[in-house]
Amino acid sequence: MAQEQDKFKQVISHAKEYGYIFSSSEIYDGLSAVYDYGQNGVELKNNIKAYWWKSMVQLHEEIVGLDAAILMHPNTWKASGHVDAFNDPMIDNKDSKKRYRADVLVEDYVEKLEQKAQKEIAKAKKRFGDQFDEQEFVTTHPRVVKYRTQSKEILARLAKSLTDEDLDDVKALIEELEIACPVSGSRDWTNVKQFNLMFGTKLGASAESASDLYLRPETAQGIFVNFSNVQKTGRMKVPFGIAQIGKAFRNEIVARQFIFRQREFEQMEMQYFVRPGEELKWFEHWKEVRTKWHQSLGLGEENYRFHDHEKMAHYANAATDIEFNFPFGFKELEGIHSRTDFDLKAHENLSGKKLQFYDPELGENYVPYVIETSIGLDRMFLAVFSSALQEETLEDGSTRTVLKIPSILAPVKAAIFPLLKKDGLPEIAQRILKDLQWDFNVIYDEKDAVGRRYRRQDAAGTPFCITVDHDTKEDQCVTIRHRDTMEQKRVPITEVKAIIQKDIDFRTWLDF
Amino acid sequence: MAQEQDKFKQVISHAKEYGYIFSSSEIYDGLSAVYDYGQNGVELKNNIKAYWWKSMVQLHEEIVGLDAAILMHPNTWKASGHVDAFNDPMIDNKDSKKRYRADVLVEDYVEKLEQKAQKEIAKAKKRFGDQFDEQEFVTTHPRVVKYRTQSKEILARLAKSLTDEDLDDVKALIEELEIACPVSGSRDWTNVKQFNLMFGTKLGASAESASDLYLRPETAQGIFVNFSNVQKTGRMKVPFGIAQIGKAFRNEIVARQFIFRQREFEQMEMQYFVRPGEELKWFEHWKEVRTKWHQSLGLGEENYRFHDHEKMAHYANAATDIEFNFPFGFKELEGIHSRTDFDLKAHENLSGKKLQFYDPELGENYVPYVIETSIGLDRMFLAVFSSALQEETLEDGSTRTVLKIPSILAPVKAAIFPLLKKDGLPEIAQRILKDLQWDFNVIYDEKDAVGRRYRRQDAAGTPFCITVDHDTKEDQCVTIRHRDTMEQKRVPITEVKAIIQKDIDFRTWLDF
Repeated sequence: MAQEQDKFKQVISHAKEYGYIFSSSEIYDGLSAVYDYGQNGVELKNNIKAYWWKSMVQLHEEIVGLDAAILMHPNTWKASGHVDAFNDPMIDNKDSKKRYRADVLVEDYVEKLEQKAQKEIAKAKKRFGDQFDEQEFVTTHPRVVKYRTQSKEILARLAKSLTDEDLDDVKALIEELEIACPVSGSRDWTNVKQFNLMFGTKLGASAESASDLYLRPETAQGIFVNFSNVQKTGRMKVPFGIAQIGKAFRNEIVARQFIFRQREFEQMEMQYFVRPGEELKWFEHWKEVRTKWHQSLGLGEENYRFHDHEKMAHYANAATDIEFNFPFGFKELEGIHSRTDFDLKAHENLSGKKLQFYDPELGENYVPYVIETSIGLDRMFLAVFSSALQEETLEDGSTRTVLKIPSILAPVKAAIFPLLKKDGLPEIAQRILKDLQWDFNVIYDEKDAVGRRYRRQDAAGTPFCITVDHDTKEDQCVTIRHRDTMEQKRVPITEVKAIIQKDIDFRTWLDF
Repeated sequence: MAQEQDKFKQVISHAKEYGYIFSSSEIYDGLSAVYDYGQNGVELKNNIKAYWWKSMVQLHEEIVGLDAAILMHPNTWKASGHVDAFNDPMIDNKDSKKRYRADVLVEDYVEKLEQKAQKEIAKAKKRFGDQFDEQEFVTTHPRVVKYRTQSKEILARLAKSLTDEDLDDVKALIEELEIACPVSGSRDWTNVKQFNLMFGTKLGASAESASDLYLRPETAQGIFVNFSNVQKTGRMKVPFGIAQIGKAFRNEIVARQFIFRQREFEQMEMQYFVRPGEELKWFEHWKEVRTKWHQSLGLGEENYRFHDHEKMAHYANAATDIEFNFPFGFKELEGIHSRTDFDLKAHENLSGKKLQFYDPELGENYVPYVIETSIGLDRMFLAVFSSALQEETLEDGSTRTVLKIPSILAPVKAAIFPLLKKDGLPEIAQRILKDLQWDFNVIYDEKDAVGRRYRRQDAAGTPFCITVDHDTKEDQCVTIRHRDTMEQKRVPITEVKAIIQKDIDFRTWLDF
């Protein structure tokens, strides 16, 4: 636990130090749960987008892109159910006036019970050493058994109250557990109320003519309302997909875990429209394809796991999460959902417009079913960044910090160094730079000893360093060093581009 | 005028028909002044972004990127002046309850005067034929002289009232001119009031703890508040630049002209930080560079003109607009501004944080001056699209509609056709497709006669068509046809990729 927290802190501070992620409006002490991407962050983010887009759109004949606006007609959110049902249960402490998610207060309580159990286990482990049988201990030790039984009961009751929308019982649970406000310590709570997570705003100027808008809480609806436009103008035939990358906004009350849960975030979604009845076949297909996409990046297969939903959202008949081992444990990275015809039908009903496909093979019109793959771009960023950040002990006993971002995603592909700031070496290095920069993002660095420059690029995540030395003038060769292996090789200047290009060719990565 | 309007209508309908631009939430009858980019639109937009990013960031050692959030701390907008001064003068008609921009009502009145003058000129031209001396006519004909003198006086008075913030005089002007509400015909107006153009929203849940946020009305401030973060972590030395592409929002009352003035739009901005006193030199430099960037695309030099500002915004000491000849006339496409140290100083004052650079050569700290280049991405899209759309009369007297988007920006680079849907031709075409799609966006089409397929791709803006025929099996060659010249050439399959690649290499376009 402590180790995980240390790792997480290191990720956050490294992300700032190397220009990946800054707190938003930091000079004004930040805006809670909103982040800015720095000079390296924006390149990594763009590269993740390109990797997804190439794989999900351009390599598929039957999938096309879309870029719908953040602002949409408010009826969109009535049809989708967000106006009525996109809520979190909130409770206010009467003394501190602070607002909390009621379910999170309860979950935090359960988390503390588990911490107590862990303490008992750690104590016993220390005491019994090799003799310790954890399996037996946790099923027989009275306090541990008590903590865990209680936890289970609490979570079951919470889940039932939330499902039944019995908010009074959620409050009763908080009172029975004697949960206090973390700020005031008071146990004087208001009732639990539902709070809608959409950010509202007003379009237009005068009070009379203004209409209430929302910042979209998901990108999917932009695809659904454009279904017919894309299908007709793109002459698409079922099965086909529409993919989109874009911002979404949720007014989270409890937003934490760095860029994992932000109020402003970015999604990469693809909605695949299929014949009714064939949706489960396609659900399995996309689950497999998306798994391969993740594996293609080599972030470690042990860092992924599936979580199939037993309880579905109201619109789904199958759903699975691809979870990633973040510094704070396994959490959802991507969701794959069989959304049935729920959304298209809801929009048909409210708009009175047909959202159907005439299937020439079947000779009939139908509302297609939908398989959705939905990945959080910021979460993918965090998955890549946190798994890439490593402390290595070298052969000579020294340590280095290295950011092993897959080279195809790395913000800067190569750094070009003159060994010394004289003897014409900078001029040669600059010529190489000016040539390579047409093809990829490269930088120039002439400050400090070469060893320090290597370390700087290791920590920044740059896969290749190219050094020009005095022999270069004679043999037209440079030293190319790889970040991960630290191997150095002397190669002709004319071959440098092809070496890098091959390493970051989509074919090298996405041919699965 | 009528011709211009026809062209504009054609642009809008072509943009929809070929999957470039749809009205947002069209099934709900649209959301005013908000648009969605379709399957071809999103690719064109992405290609414009990439063209700008390559040119403005990756080809410059001293410029780096940033991706700041749309939501920012509200103090940002106090410091920038947007809370106090980002207003439009509004007036309501008491009968129709409709709200208008007061200045636009007056400008529309002046527009009508000019239309009357134009009518007189057209009449005289028809009457006098070759004898007609327009120059003399407009300076002597009493009604034309009257209309134009009146127009000048009205606009001068409007400009003065707005500068003096004398809103009562704006209302007086509307009443003196007897301007009526276009909806009700009534002349019963409220007073003129200032209306802030920022979209507001609320962060957090409870009324007590909620804070008022704005959707950013410009991306520039995201760069200014991150100045020190980027400068320090990127070890940047003045002069250096920070570039950003992102959404901004303005609650325009009068939003029209398609995607030219949207409520949600995207900017591509670069802020270049320089030594105080050197800003005018850099202003000229960036004016020149940005002009070359525009010219590199070959949209027609006659379609561009500069408009130097004589009156500056409060923060600027030099400003120019690059205007483009849109279907509705010359309008601002890009602005280049010498913003002095206004923004950084304002943020220093409000935040209490230093936003300075220690200049080792001068041995002193200073707040840098800023040159900004700011281009509307949607406007650039419209410039490319509208100038590309052409009706051509061919040698045989038939016409074709062709969308001559510069190939580096074209959504689809090549369409692959089998001449017939049999004899193994589709299989060969598919193999070519599967190979090319790793490198660029390509599509496959086997429907209709080849001539029709060519026309379809001409209208969609695809620069290359590649046709597989029966000889292909023998000679391993295909026919490659270019959209603009309609020339067809037989080339080996193995050479196709290089031909396209050379045509869309950044070196071919951006080496200025």
